[in-house]
Amino acid sequence: LHVPFSGERSSHDEMVRKSKEFYEMLNKRRSVRFISSEPVPREVIDNIIRAAGTAPSGAHTEPWTFVVVQDPEAKHKIREIIEEEEEINYMKRMGEKWVNDLKRLRTNWVKEYLDTAPYLILIFKQVYGLLPQNKKKTHYYNEISVSIACGILLAALQNAGLVTVTTTPLNCGPRLRVLLQRPVNEKLLMLLPVGYPSKDATVPDLKRKPLEDIMVVV
Amino acid sequence: LHVPFSGERSSHDEMVRKSKEFYEMLNKRRSVRFISSEPVPREVIDNIIRAAGTAPSGAHTEPWTFVVVQDPEAKHKIREIIEEEEEINYMKRMGEKWVNDLKRLRTNWVKEYLDTAPYLILIFKQVYGLLPQNKKKTHYYNEISVSIACGILLAALQNAGLVTVTTTPLNCGPRLRVLLQRPVNEKLLMLLPVGYPSKDATVPDLKRKPLEDIMVVV
Ligand SMILES: Cc1cc2nc3c(=O)[nH]c(=O)nc-3n(C[C@H](O)[C@H](O)[C@H](O)COP(=O)(O)O)c2cc1C
Ligand SMILES: Cc1cc2nc3c(=O)[nH]c(=O)nc-3n(C[C@H](O)[C@H](O)[C@H](O)COP(=O)(O)O)c2cc1C
Repeated sequence: LHVPFSGERSSHDEMVRKSKEFYEMLNKRRSVRFISSEPVPREVIDNIIRAAGTAPSGAHTEPWTFVVVQDPEAKHKIREIIEEEEEINYMKRMGEKWVNDLKRLRTNWVKEYLDTAPYLILIFKQVYGLLPQNKKKTHYYNEISVSIACGILLAALQNAGLVTVTTTPLNCGPRLRVLLQRPVNEKLLMLLPVGYPSKDATVPDLKRKPLEDIMVVV
Repeated sequence: LHVPFSGERSSHDEMVRKSKEFYEMLNKRRSVRFISSEPVPREVIDNIIRAAGTAPSGAHTEPWTFVVVQDPEAKHKIREIIEEEEEINYMKRMGEKWVNDLKRLRTNWVKEYLDTAPYLILIFKQVYGLLPQNKKKTHYYNEISVSIACGILLAALQNAGLVTVTTTPLNCGPRLRVLLQRPVNEKLLMLLPVGYPSKDATVPDLKRKPLEDIMVVV
Protein backbone atom coordinates (compact mmCIF):
# COMPACT_ATOMS: atom_id res chain seq x y z
CA LEU A 1 0.00 0.00 0.00
CA HIS A 2 1.20 3.47 -0.87
CA VAL A 3 -0.17 6.64 0.71
CA PRO A 4 0.02 10.33 -0.19
CA PHE A 5 2.92 12.26 1.30
CA SER A 6 2.91 15.98 1.97
CA GLY A 7 5.65 17.74 3.84
CA GLU A 8 5.32 20.95 5.80
CA ARG A 9 6.38 24.08 3.95
CA SER A 10 8.22 27.09 5.30
CA SER A 11 9.27 30.27 3.49
CA HIS A 12 12.76 30.41 2.02
CA ASP A 13 13.84 32.85 4.76
CA GLU A 14 12.53 30.53 7.43
CA MET A 15 14.40 27.59 5.90
CA VAL A 16 17.64 29.56 5.81
CA ARG A 17 17.18 30.57 9.45
CA LYS A 18 16.29 27.07 10.63
CA SER A 19 19.16 25.42 8.77
CA LYS A 20 21.64 27.94 10.17
CA GLU A 21 20.42 27.44 13.75
CA PHE A 22 20.60 23.67 13.36
CA TYR A 23 24.18 23.91 12.12
CA GLU A 24 25.14 26.22 14.99
CA MET A 25 23.59 23.89 17.56
CA LEU A 26 25.46 20.87 16.14
CA ASN A 27 28.71 22.76 15.70
CA LYS A 28 28.92 23.03 19.50
CA ARG A 29 29.08 19.23 19.74
CA ARG A 30 32.41 17.82 20.88
CA SER A 31 33.51 14.35 21.87
CA VAL A 32 33.76 14.61 25.65
CA ARG A 33 35.78 12.00 27.54
CA PHE A 34 35.05 13.34 31.06
CA ILE A 35 31.49 12.61 32.08
CA SER A 36 29.81 13.55 35.34
CA SER A 37 27.88 11.01 37.39
CA GLU A 38 24.94 13.41 37.75
CA PRO A 39 21.67 11.61 36.94
CA VAL A 40 19.84 12.20 33.64
CA PRO A 41 16.13 11.41 33.24
CA ARG A 42 15.54 8.06 31.51
CA GLU A 43 12.73 9.62 29.48
CA VAL A 44 15.31 11.76 27.67
CA ILE A 45 17.31 8.66 26.76
CA ASP A 46 14.12 6.94 25.55
CA ASN A 47 13.28 9.88 23.29
CA ILE A 48 16.80 9.97 21.90
CA ILE A 49 16.63 6.30 20.99
CA ARG A 50 13.19 6.82 19.50
CA ALA A 51 14.78 9.52 17.32
CA ALA A 52 17.57 7.16 16.24
CA GLY A 53 14.92 4.59 15.31
CA THR A 54 13.47 6.94 12.68
CA ALA A 55 16.57 6.45 10.52
CA PRO A 56 16.20 5.04 7.02
CA SER A 57 17.53 1.52 6.50
CA GLY A 58 18.21 -0.70 3.50
CA ALA A 59 14.84 -2.26 2.46
CA HIS A 60 13.37 -1.00 5.79
CA THR A 61 15.05 -3.71 7.83
CA GLU A 62 15.68 -1.46 10.90
CA PRO A 63 18.73 -3.59 11.78
CA TRP A 64 19.59 -1.99 15.14
CA THR A 65 19.51 -2.79 18.86
CA PHE A 66 20.28 -0.08 21.42
CA VAL A 67 21.37 -1.52 24.75
CA VAL A 68 21.12 1.07 27.52
CA VAL A 69 23.27 0.14 30.51
CA GLN A 70 22.43 1.99 33.73
CA ASP A 71 23.29 -0.70 36.30
CA PRO A 72 26.59 0.28 38.01
CA GLU A 73 27.84 -3.29 38.23
CA ALA A 74 27.18 -3.95 34.55
CA LYS A 75 28.93 -0.67 33.67
CA HIS A 76 31.93 -1.73 35.72
CA LYS A 77 32.13 -5.13 34.04
CA ILE A 78 32.06 -3.37 30.68
CA ARG A 79 34.88 -1.12 31.84
CA GLU A 80 36.97 -4.11 32.87
CA ILE A 81 36.54 -5.80 29.51
CA ILE A 82 37.27 -2.64 27.53
CA GLU A 83 40.31 -1.57 29.54
CA GLU A 84 41.78 -5.04 29.30
CA GLU A 85 41.37 -5.17 25.52
CA GLU A 86 42.26 -1.52 24.93
CA GLU A 87 45.55 -1.88 26.80
CA ILE A 88 46.48 -4.70 24.39
CA ASN A 89 45.21 -2.55 21.47
CA TYR A 90 47.44 0.37 22.41
CA MET A 91 50.49 -1.75 23.33
CA LYS A 92 50.34 -4.29 20.52
CA ARG A 93 47.44 -4.39 18.13
CA MET A 94 47.15 -0.80 16.85
CA GLY A 95 50.81 -0.31 15.98
CA GLU A 96 53.04 2.73 16.42
CA LYS A 97 51.46 4.76 13.62
CA TRP A 98 47.88 4.56 14.86
CA VAL A 99 48.91 5.30 18.46
CA ASN A 100 50.85 8.27 17.14
CA ASP A 101 47.86 9.56 15.11
CA LEU A 102 45.85 9.59 18.36
CA LYS A 103 48.48 11.46 20.44
CA ARG A 104 46.91 14.88 20.13
CA LEU A 105 43.59 13.46 21.38
CA ARG A 106 45.42 12.14 24.50
CA THR A 107 43.28 9.02 24.51
CA ASN A 108 44.53 5.88 26.21
CA TRP A 109 43.09 2.68 27.65
CA VAL A 110 41.92 4.10 30.99
CA LYS A 111 38.25 4.97 30.59
CA GLU A 112 36.81 6.30 33.81
CA TYR A 113 33.71 7.53 31.98
CA LEU A 114 32.56 3.91 31.68
CA ASP A 115 31.90 3.99 35.44
CA THR A 116 30.86 7.61 35.87
CA ALA A 117 28.46 8.16 32.94
CA PRO A 118 24.88 7.53 34.08
CA TYR A 119 24.23 5.58 30.84
CA LEU A 120 26.26 3.58 28.37
CA ILE A 121 24.49 3.06 25.06
CA LEU A 122 25.86 0.08 23.16
CA ILE A 123 24.69 -0.02 19.56
CA PHE A 124 24.55 -3.40 17.87
CA LYS A 125 24.05 -3.97 14.16
CA GLN A 126 22.00 -7.02 13.28
CA VAL A 127 24.10 -8.47 10.48
CA TYR A 128 21.11 -10.61 9.49
CA GLY A 129 17.59 -11.04 10.81
CA LEU A 130 16.02 -14.16 12.27
CA LEU A 131 12.93 -15.63 10.58
CA PRO A 132 10.83 -18.61 11.70
CA GLN A 133 12.46 -22.04 11.15
CA ASN A 134 15.95 -20.59 11.62
CA LYS A 135 15.89 -18.87 8.25
CA LYS A 136 18.06 -15.80 7.88
CA LYS A 137 16.70 -12.49 6.62
CA THR A 138 19.22 -10.44 4.63
CA HIS A 139 19.96 -7.04 6.14
CA TYR A 140 21.14 -5.01 3.16
CA TYR A 141 23.68 -2.30 4.04
CA ASN A 142 23.24 -2.97 7.77
CA GLU A 143 26.43 -1.22 8.90
CA ILE A 144 25.69 1.92 6.90
CA SER A 145 22.08 1.98 8.12
CA VAL A 146 23.05 1.61 11.78
CA SER A 147 25.77 4.25 11.43
CA ILE A 148 23.19 6.66 9.97
CA ALA A 149 20.97 5.93 12.99
CA CYS A 150 23.96 6.70 15.24
CA GLY A 151 24.44 10.04 13.46
CA ILE A 152 20.83 10.90 14.23
CA LEU A 153 21.32 9.71 17.82
CA LEU A 154 24.33 12.02 18.22
CA ALA A 155 22.32 14.96 16.90
CA ALA A 156 19.52 14.11 19.34
CA LEU A 157 21.94 13.97 22.29
CA GLN A 158 23.38 17.35 21.37
CA ASN A 159 19.91 18.82 20.98
CA ALA A 160 19.01 17.61 24.49
CA GLY A 161 22.16 19.10 26.06
CA LEU A 162 23.97 15.82 26.72
CA VAL A 163 27.47 14.78 25.76
CA THR A 164 29.14 11.59 24.63
CA VAL A 165 32.21 10.31 22.85
CA THR A 166 31.74 8.08 19.81
CA THR A 167 33.79 4.95 20.43
CA THR A 168 34.33 1.72 18.53
CA PRO A 169 35.95 -0.53 21.15
CA LEU A 170 38.35 -2.62 19.07
CA ASN A 171 38.21 -6.38 19.74
CA CYS A 172 35.71 -5.98 22.61
CA GLY A 173 32.58 -6.82 20.59
CA PRO A 174 32.40 -10.57 21.21
CA ARG A 175 32.92 -10.34 25.00
CA LEU A 176 30.46 -7.46 25.37
CA ARG A 177 27.87 -9.30 23.28
CA VAL A 178 28.11 -12.31 25.60
CA LEU A 179 28.07 -10.14 28.74
CA LEU A 180 24.90 -8.38 27.55
CA GLN A 181 23.36 -11.65 26.33
CA ARG A 182 22.79 -10.44 22.79
CA PRO A 183 22.13 -13.05 20.08
CA VAL A 184 24.80 -14.14 17.59
CA ASN A 185 23.34 -12.12 14.71
CA GLU A 186 24.20 -8.90 16.57
CA LYS A 187 27.64 -7.30 16.40
CA LEU A 188 28.78 -4.32 18.45
CA LEU A 189 29.19 -1.22 16.27
CA MET A 190 29.57 1.59 18.78
CA LEU A 191 29.59 2.43 22.47
CA LEU A 192 28.42 5.84 23.65
CA PRO A 193 28.82 6.91 27.30
CA VAL A 194 26.10 9.51 27.92
CA GLY A 195 25.68 12.22 30.53
CA TYR A 196 26.64 15.78 31.39
CA PRO A 197 30.24 16.89 31.00
CA SER A 198 32.14 16.81 34.31
CA LYS A 199 33.06 20.19 35.82
CA ASP A 200 36.72 19.99 34.82
CA ALA A 201 36.12 18.49 31.36
CA THR A 202 38.58 19.44 28.62
CA VAL A 203 38.61 18.66 24.90
CA PRO A 204 41.40 18.72 22.32
CA ASP A 205 41.52 22.11 20.61
CA LEU A 206 40.55 20.82 17.16
CA LYS A 207 39.31 22.85 14.22
CA ARG A 208 36.79 21.64 11.65
CA LYS A 209 37.34 21.93 7.90
CA PRO A 210 35.58 24.95 6.38
CA LEU A 211 32.73 24.42 3.91
CA GLU A 212 34.92 24.95 0.84
CA ASP A 213 37.12 22.01 1.86
CA ILE A 214 34.26 19.53 2.12
CA MET A 215 31.81 20.73 -0.56
CA VAL A 216 32.18 20.76 -4.34
CA VAL A 217 29.47 22.33 -6.53
CA VAL A 218 28.82 21.14 -10.08
CA LEU B 1 46.47 21.68 23.32
CA HIS B 2 43.41 20.89 25.38
CA VAL B 3 40.81 23.47 26.36
CA PRO B 4 38.01 23.54 28.95
CA PHE B 5 34.62 22.33 27.77
CA SER B 6 31.33 23.40 29.24
CA GLY B 7 27.99 22.50 27.75
CA GLU B 8 24.77 24.43 28.10
CA ARG B 9 22.40 23.17 30.80
CA SER B 10 18.63 22.98 30.69
CA SER B 11 16.23 21.75 33.36
CA HIS B 12 15.16 18.11 33.26
CA ASP B 13 11.68 19.16 32.09
CA GLU B 14 13.15 21.22 29.31
CA MET B 15 15.35 18.29 28.20
CA VAL B 16 12.36 15.95 28.12
CA ARG B 17 10.39 18.46 26.06
CA LYS B 18 13.23 19.15 23.62
CA SER B 19 14.03 15.48 23.12
CA LYS B 20 10.37 14.68 22.48
CA GLU B 21 9.99 17.49 19.94
CA PHE B 22 13.16 16.41 18.15
CA TYR B 23 11.88 12.83 17.90
CA GLU B 24 8.51 14.02 16.59
CA MET B 25 10.16 16.21 13.97
CA LEU B 26 12.35 13.34 12.75
CA ASN B 27 9.56 10.79 12.90
CA LYS B 28 7.85 12.70 10.06
CA ARG B 29 10.82 11.95 7.80
CA ARG B 30 10.12 9.56 4.95
CA SER B 31 12.14 8.50 1.94
CA VAL B 32 10.42 10.36 -0.89
CA ARG B 33 10.99 9.19 -4.46
CA PHE B 34 8.91 11.92 -6.16
CA ILE B 35 10.69 15.26 -6.02
CA SER B 36 9.44 18.56 -7.39
CA SER B 37 11.60 20.76 -9.60
CA GLU B 38 10.77 23.84 -7.51
CA PRO B 39 13.95 25.75 -6.66
CA VAL B 40 15.47 25.60 -3.15
CA PRO B 41 17.88 28.31 -1.90
CA ARG B 42 21.54 27.21 -2.16
CA GLU B 43 22.20 28.73 1.27
CA VAL B 44 19.99 26.08 2.84
CA ILE B 45 22.03 23.34 1.13
CA ASP B 46 25.26 25.00 2.30
CA ASN B 47 24.03 25.05 5.92
CA ILE B 48 22.96 21.43 5.72
CA ILE B 49 26.39 20.37 4.51
CA ARG B 50 27.99 22.52 7.21
CA ALA B 51 25.88 20.57 9.73
CA ALA B 52 27.01 17.23 8.26
CA GLY B 53 30.61 18.43 8.58
CA THR B 54 30.27 18.68 12.37
CA ALA B 55 30.14 14.88 12.60
CA PRO B 56 32.73 13.04 14.66
CA SER B 57 35.27 10.99 12.69
CA GLY B 58 37.90 8.40 13.54
CA ALA B 59 41.01 10.32 14.74
CA HIS B 60 39.39 13.55 13.42
CA THR B 61 40.15 12.71 9.80
CA GLU B 62 36.89 14.27 8.42
CA PRO B 63 37.01 11.81 5.50
CA TRP B 64 34.07 13.20 3.48
CA THR B 65 33.40 15.09 0.26
CA PHE B 66 29.91 16.35 -0.54
CA VAL B 67 29.38 16.95 -4.25
CA VAL B 68 26.33 19.14 -4.89
CA VAL B 69 25.08 18.78 -8.45
CA GLN B 70 22.74 21.54 -9.60
CA ASP B 71 23.62 21.71 -13.31
CA PRO B 72 20.75 20.09 -15.29
CA GLU B 73 23.09 18.48 -17.82
CA ALA B 74 25.26 16.93 -15.12
CA LYS B 75 22.13 15.66 -13.37
CA HIS B 76 20.94 14.08 -16.60
CA LYS B 77 24.28 12.36 -17.21
CA ILE B 78 24.10 10.96 -13.68
CA ARG B 79 20.59 9.69 -14.40
CA GLU B 80 21.78 7.96 -17.55
CA ILE B 81 24.60 6.18 -15.74
CA ILE B 82 22.41 5.14 -12.83
CA GLU B 83 19.47 3.92 -14.89
CA GLU B 84 21.79 1.90 -17.11
CA GLU B 85 23.47 0.21 -14.13
CA GLU B 86 20.29 -0.15 -12.07
CA GLU B 87 18.49 -1.92 -14.90
CA ILE B 88 21.29 -4.51 -14.91
CA ASN B 89 21.15 -4.63 -11.09
CA TYR B 90 17.44 -5.39 -11.04
CA MET B 91 17.53 -7.80 -14.01
CA LYS B 92 20.71 -9.68 -13.17
CA ARG B 93 22.93 -8.59 -10.31
CA MET B 94 20.58 -8.34 -7.34
CA GLY B 95 18.93 -11.73 -7.74
CA GLU B 96 15.28 -12.73 -7.29
CA LYS B 97 15.33 -12.55 -3.49
CA TRP B 98 16.57 -8.98 -3.20
CA VAL B 99 14.20 -7.76 -5.94
CA ASN B 100 11.40 -9.49 -4.05
CA ASP B 101 12.37 -7.87 -0.74
CA LEU B 102 12.01 -4.47 -2.45
CA LYS B 103 8.59 -5.16 -4.01
CA ARG B 104 6.56 -3.37 -1.36
CA LEU B 105 8.70 -0.24 -1.86
CA ARG B 106 7.85 -0.35 -5.61
CA THR B 107 11.33 0.82 -6.50
CA ASN B 108 12.77 0.10 -9.93
CA TRP B 109 15.49 1.43 -12.20
CA VAL B 110 13.59 4.45 -13.56
CA LYS B 111 14.61 7.42 -11.45
CA GLU B 112 12.94 10.58 -12.65
CA TYR B 113 13.95 12.40 -9.47
CA LEU B 114 17.52 12.48 -10.75
CA ASP B 115 16.36 15.04 -13.33
CA THR B 116 13.67 16.84 -11.33
CA ALA B 117 15.34 17.36 -7.93
CA PRO B 118 16.99 20.79 -7.82
CA TYR B 119 20.07 19.23 -6.15
CA LEU B 120 21.73 15.85 -6.09
CA ILE B 121 24.15 15.44 -3.19
CA LEU B 122 26.72 12.72 -3.83
CA ILE B 123 28.62 11.75 -0.72
CA PHE B 124 32.08 10.31 -1.18
CA LYS B 125 34.13 8.63 1.54
CA GLN B 126 37.85 9.26 1.34
CA VAL B 127 39.18 5.76 1.94
CA TYR B 128 42.58 7.27 2.63
CA GLY B 129 43.98 10.79 2.71
CA LEU B 130 46.68 12.26 0.50
CA LEU B 131 49.84 13.61 2.13
CA PRO B 132 52.80 15.36 0.45
CA GLN B 133 55.11 13.07 -1.55
CA ASN B 134 52.23 10.72 -2.41
CA LYS B 135 52.09 9.31 1.09
CA LYS B 136 48.77 7.92 2.23
CA LYS B 137 47.09 9.00 5.45
CA THR B 138 45.04 6.28 7.13
CA HIS B 139 41.37 7.14 7.52
CA TYR B 140 40.29 4.96 10.42
CA TYR B 141 36.64 3.87 10.26
CA ASN B 142 36.01 6.09 7.23
CA GLU B 143 32.77 4.40 6.11
CA ILE B 144 31.25 4.55 9.60
CA SER B 145 32.31 8.19 10.03
CA VAL B 146 30.85 9.27 6.69
CA SER B 147 27.63 7.35 7.36
CA ILE B 148 27.30 9.17 10.70
CA ALA B 149 27.75 12.46 8.82
CA CYS B 150 24.98 11.35 6.43
CA GLY B 151 22.69 10.66 9.38
CA ILE B 152 23.26 14.21 10.59
CA LEU B 153 22.70 15.49 7.04
CA LEU B 154 19.36 13.66 6.84
CA ALA B 155 18.30 15.18 10.17
CA ALA B 156 19.31 18.63 8.90
CA LEU B 157 17.29 18.18 5.68
CA GLN B 158 14.22 17.16 7.65
CA ASN B 159 14.65 20.09 10.01
CA ALA B 160 14.75 22.45 7.02
CA GLY B 161 11.59 21.00 5.47
CA LEU B 162 13.26 19.23 2.55
CA VAL B 163 12.95 15.63 1.43
CA THR B 164 15.28 13.03 -0.03
CA VAL B 165 15.66 9.31 -0.49
CA THR B 166 18.82 7.65 0.81
CA THR B 167 20.29 5.69 -2.08
CA THR B 168 23.41 3.61 -2.56
CA PRO B 169 23.60 3.23 -6.34
CA LEU B 170 25.04 -0.27 -6.75
CA ASN B 171 27.96 -0.52 -9.20
CA CYS B 172 27.65 3.15 -10.26
CA GLY B 173 30.42 4.47 -8.03
CA PRO B 174 33.36 4.24 -10.43
CA ARG B 175 31.55 5.87 -13.40
CA LEU B 176 30.12 8.65 -11.23
CA ARG B 177 33.51 9.30 -9.67
CA VAL B 178 35.03 9.75 -13.12
CA LEU B 179 32.10 11.90 -14.35
CA LEU B 180 32.47 14.20 -11.34
CA GLN B 181 36.27 14.20 -11.58
CA ARG B 182 36.85 13.03 -8.02
CA PRO B 183 40.26 11.60 -7.11
CA VAL B 184 40.92 7.86 -6.78
CA ASN B 185 40.94 7.93 -2.96
CA GLU B 186 37.24 8.84 -2.98
CA LYS B 187 34.51 6.23 -3.27
CA LEU B 188 30.81 6.96 -3.65
CA LEU B 189 28.88 6.06 -0.50
CA MET B 190 25.48 7.62 -1.05
CA LEU B 191 23.42 9.73 -3.42
CA LEU B 192 20.67 12.00 -2.08
CA PRO B 193 18.27 13.82 -4.44
CA VAL B 194 17.10 16.88 -2.52
CA GLY B 195 14.09 19.15 -2.90
CA TYR B 196 10.41 19.51 -2.03
CA PRO B 197 8.09 16.55 -2.46
CA SER B 198 6.12 16.73 -5.72
CA LYS B 199 2.39 17.43 -5.40
CA ASP B 200 1.35 13.84 -6.09
CA ALA B 201 4.11 12.21 -4.02
CA THR B 202 3.26 8.92 -2.34
CA VAL B 203 5.27 6.75 0.06
CA PRO B 204 4.95 3.08 1.05
CA ASP B 205 2.74 2.73 4.10
CA LEU B 206 5.49 1.44 6.40
CA LYS B 207 5.43 1.29 10.19
CA ARG B 208 8.47 1.77 12.42
CA LYS B 209 9.36 -0.63 15.22
CA PRO B 210 8.19 0.58 18.64
CA LEU B 211 10.78 1.52 21.28
CA GLU B 212 10.52 -1.81 23.10
CA ASP B 213 11.61 -3.66 19.96
CA ILE B 214 14.80 -1.64 19.48
CA MET B 215 15.86 -0.81 23.07
CA VAL B 216 17.07 -3.13 25.81
CA VAL B 217 17.75 -1.76 29.32
CA VAL B 218 20.32 -3.35 31.63
C1 LIG C 1 21.94 2.38 3.27
C2 LIG C 1 20.60 2.59 2.60
C3 LIG C 1 20.47 2.32 1.24
C4 LIG C 1 19.25 2.55 0.60
N1 LIG C 1 19.16 2.34 -0.76
C5 LIG C 1 18.03 2.70 -1.42
C6 LIG C 1 17.99 2.69 -2.83
O1 LIG C 1 19.00 2.38 -3.50
N2 LIG C 1 16.84 3.05 -3.45
C7 LIG C 1 15.72 3.44 -2.74
O2 LIG C 1 14.71 3.76 -3.35
N3 LIG C 1 15.74 3.48 -1.39
C8 LIG C 1 16.87 3.13 -0.71
N4 LIG C 1 16.92 3.24 0.66
C9 LIG C 1 15.76 3.77 1.40
C10 LIG C 1 15.02 2.68 2.19
O3 LIG C 1 14.29 1.85 1.34
C11 LIG C 1 14.09 3.36 3.22
O4 LIG C 1 14.88 4.08 4.14
C12 LIG C 1 13.24 2.34 3.98
O5 LIG C 1 12.35 1.71 3.11
C13 LIG C 1 12.47 3.00 5.14
O6 LIG C 1 11.64 4.03 4.69
P1 LIG C 1 11.74 5.49 5.29
O7 LIG C 1 13.13 6.01 4.95
O8 LIG C 1 10.65 6.26 4.61
O9 LIG C 1 11.56 5.40 6.78
C14 LIG C 1 18.13 3.01 1.34
C15 LIG C 1 18.29 3.28 2.71
C16 LIG C 1 19.51 3.08 3.33
C17 LIG C 1 19.67 3.43 4.78
C1 LIG D 1 33.83 5.79 14.02
C2 LIG D 1 34.49 6.57 15.13
C3 LIG D 1 35.27 5.92 16.07
C4 LIG D 1 35.85 6.62 17.13
N1 LIG D 1 36.55 5.91 18.08
C5 LIG D 1 36.99 6.57 19.19
C6 LIG D 1 37.54 5.84 20.28
O1 LIG D 1 37.60 4.61 20.24
N2 LIG D 1 37.97 6.54 21.37
C7 LIG D 1 37.86 7.91 21.46
O2 LIG D 1 38.25 8.48 22.47
N3 LIG D 1 37.33 8.64 20.42
C8 LIG D 1 36.87 7.99 19.31
N4 LIG D 1 36.24 8.70 18.30
C9 LIG D 1 36.05 10.16 18.45
C10 LIG D 1 36.97 10.98 17.53
O3 LIG D 1 38.29 10.96 18.00
C11 LIG D 1 36.44 12.44 17.45
O4 LIG D 1 35.17 12.41 16.86
C12 LIG D 1 37.35 13.33 16.64
O5 LIG D 1 38.58 13.49 17.30
C13 LIG D 1 36.72 14.71 16.39
O6 LIG D 1 36.41 15.34 17.61
P1 LIG D 1 34.93 15.88 17.89
O7 LIG D 1 34.03 14.67 17.92
O8 LIG D 1 35.03 16.57 19.22
O9 LIG D 1 34.54 16.81 16.76
C14 LIG D 1 35.67 8.03 17.22
C15 LIG D 1 34.89 8.68 16.27
C16 LIG D 1 34.29 7.96 15.24
C17 LIG D 1 33.40 8.68 14.27
